[in-house]
Amino acid sequence: MRVVEALLRVRYAETDRMGVVYHGHYLVWFEIGRTEYCRAAGLPYRKMEESGLWILVTRADCTYRRGARYDDSIRVRSRLTELQSRGLTFAYDVVDAEDRPLADGSTRHVFADSSGKPRRAPAEILEALERFRMSA
Amino acid sequence: MRVVEALLRVRYAETDRMGVVYHGHYLVWFEIGRTEYCRAAGLPYRKMEESGLWILVTRADCTYRRGARYDDSIRVRSRLTELQSRGLTFAYDVVDAEDRPLADGSTRHVFADSSGKPRRAPAEILEALERFRMSA
Amino acid sequence: MRVVEALLRVRYAETDRMGVVYHGHYLVWFEIGRTEYCRAAGLPYRKMEESGLWILVTRADCTYRRGARYDDSIRVRSRLTELQSRGLTFAYDVVDAEDRPLADGSTRHVFADSSGKPRRAPAEILEALERFRMSA
Amino acid sequence: MRVVEALLRVRYAETDRMGVVYHGHYLVWFEIGRTEYCRAAGLPYRKMEESGLWILVTRADCTYRRGARYDDSIRVRSRLTELQSRGLTFAYDVVDAEDRPLADGSTRHVFADSSGKPRRAPAEILEALERFRMSA
Repeated sequence: MRVVEALLRVRYAETDRMGVVYHGHYLVWFEIGRTEYCRAAGLPYRKMEESGLWILVTRADCTYRRGARYDDSIRVRSRLTELQSRGLTFAYDVVDAEDRPLADGSTRHVFADSSGKPRRAPAEILEALERFRMSA
Repeated sequence: MRVVEALLRVRYAETDRMGVVYHGHYLVWFEIGRTEYCRAAGLPYRKMEESGLWILVTRADCTYRRGARYDDSIRVRSRLTELQSRGLTFAYDVVDAEDRPLADGSTRHVFADSSGKPRRAPAEILEALERFRMSA
Repeated sequence: MRVVEALLRVRYAETDRMGVVYHGHYLVWFEIGRTEYCRAAGLPYRKMEESGLWILVTRADCTYRRGARYDDSIRVRSRLTELQSRGLTFAYDVVDAEDRPLADGSTRHVFADSSGKPRRAPAEILEALERFRMSA
Repeated sequence: MRVVEALLRVRYAETDRMGVVYHGHYLVWFEIGRTEYCRAAGLPYRKMEESGLWILVTRADCTYRRGARYDDSIRVRSRLTELQSRGLTFAYDVVDAEDRPLADGSTRHVFADSSGKPRRAPAEILEALERFRMSA
């Protein structure tokens, strides 16, 4: 199954008084992961939104393994683990520069129109995502 | 089981370009919920940290039901659903001013010392939390 | 000149690895200050936006005097220091529970329509704001 | 005077309900700018902190010219405009992919020890920064 890697560096603003990244920011990093996943699949998320296809988050979870520190190099590895006409699920692994696991989790989404009403995704988008996620 | 309610108002900074609160901010609201829970139990979290007892997040999940908008009045209802000497679990319900569910979720925590090493919580803290969570 | 006070508590998420509030969050606190100012003046900002009057930030500055810590009680005191048909300026003082200055600053704004184009504010809004800001 | 450019992409989390980047996030982008400036000068900021030299923000200002949108490519150009043994000032220009100005501003800093007390920076650090900022 296709894995797309996004790179980022920990921002000072993302740390908290424990000296590590505040746990809530991992959901932002997951968002960066799926943004890069969609871009790599040839379907930039911003273009999908502009065409009237919104992808709402309906569930998110994250398990924390190890703290990340200011200026650390971080990799977010994203996979598209489920794909249906009504929604999809991404899974994420966040690792540091030495490939040690920092956190992992998943987000569940539904497709919606610009008013937030659930809709089915167009067949060509589903096919493009399916082809991409199954390619090595 | 004891429920503690925290009140907040949606900040402009918390909205995203969909016009609703960005999903990642709910983890911050959960944090406000458990801060107020600990204060109501007579154990302000900041004092626990200052005494050398840190409470690390090891897992978080959130299910999203309905979007919240700028300036909405929000209530976060927190319960302490599990309590052991090594850690604890909180559950949260986030509702709007009309009591409609916006999101719910949970966070799992371990007790640690100031260096991040797991430790057991002192008996008097566990007893105080247990007494509080079982009081109506 | 009328001063409106907003109360808040420092969130864990707002601290950084120095142990104090990350400096960027003061702009969010200023936003809370002017939200409460407009509400106190009888002109909730959300209602202004819904009526087609947007207030864009064109300039912000902040001087930092003293760090704020997790769970501190904070007061944001806001004044409307300039008011014209095309825009307005707010000034802010942020103090702790002992009234010690933490930061102060200002934000400059222009009125705009929902597409972001500059416009003049309606006379009744300008008059209501003028009356309010000059009341003791 | 030396200019260091940092590249970033607008995160969904950074937008607000106006559809553009929330104005407070520019201070975070400035922080990314000066982090990359110090790294380019051979003095990674994290290493300075670890050696006991902290750089506190004492003043920040930002003027906003044009909104940035989700997934836009952004460049932050940073210059070190003032350098003394007790503190320093950075100036920033934020532009989009077409080099159009989005915002500009500055931050003023003092050197401090790890307890937050003002101190002078070591001569070798001041000399390295001075050499770097004056190099074309």
